[in-house]
Amino acid sequence: MATDTSGTVKVFPEYKEGLRDLDGFSHVILVYYFHRSKNVKLTAKPYMDNCQRGIFSIRSPHRPNHIGMTLVELVKIDDDTLYIKGVDMVNETPLLDIKPYSPSFDMAVEVKTGWMEQFLNGKRSKRMTIVNSEEDWLHLK
Amino acid sequence: MATDTSGTVKVFPEYKEGLRDLDGFSHVILVYYFHRSKNVKLTAKPYMDNCQRGIFSIRSPHRPNHIGMTLVELVKIDDDTLYIKGVDMVNETPLLDIKPYSPSFDMAVEVKTGWMEQFLNGKRSKRMTIVNSEEDWLHLK
Repeated sequence: MATDTSGTVKVFPEYKEGLRDLDGFSHVILVYYFHRSKNVKLTAKPYMDNCQRGIFSIRSPHRPNHIGMTLVELVKIDDDTLYIKGVDMVNETPLLDIKPYSPSFDMAVEVKTGWMEQFLNGKRSKRMTIVNSEEDWLHLK
Repeated sequence: MATDTSGTVKVFPEYKEGLRDLDGFSHVILVYYFHRSKNVKLTAKPYMDNCQRGIFSIRSPHRPNHIGMTLVELVKIDDDTLYIKGVDMVNETPLLDIKPYSPSFDMAVEVKTGWMEQFLNGKRSKRMTIVNSEEDWLHLK
């Protein structure tokens, strides 16, 4: 997670009732549409690497169906608005779903992370593993 | 995860190239369409509880957009087929996306799980926390 970045998520009034009971969760998974990506690639260069990787082995927006998901910290809910931390989406991203995060469903132990391993275990600079916003992927910055 | 259940995921030939490099990962997140759910509810009774909860605080298929996601163990990849463990989807579920699981993006620590807590920390029977297939939700069994 991009742990320092705060943001808000607003749901349409007709879905507000669906937020009931969510405030007890410390983390939620946001499922959204990569609306700024206009093409589909089968391989792409991930932000932390320099070679082409299969699109299903990276988190690039240029994927078939353009569905993104991000784990964020839920700070509070006020009416139709979620206050969150750890945002890596661009502004105005259309939200498709919100799911409660539960380690019993969403956490794996004894994990291997393939090509990412060399970047995530500290062999390269830490900055490369933190800069993971959609804007970076899209080269908007 | 429903750790004991094995299954396969087949991608269309035109997307096969996107699987490159994925075999180094021990776990993947499957994003799919809840094709058997024909209605949208804003509250529903989760399989492990007896009262209505907001749809965004549970993992029910009857949610707006009908998008599901499940963390599974990746056993191996053979051509266009992923062999996986920990499946909780119904057969023939249409796949929307495959994402590599990485604890640095997808794992949270110091987690609170709201209404689920009483069920997940062992206060109720373990069976209730394991029976979490989509078929149970849909009352197909």
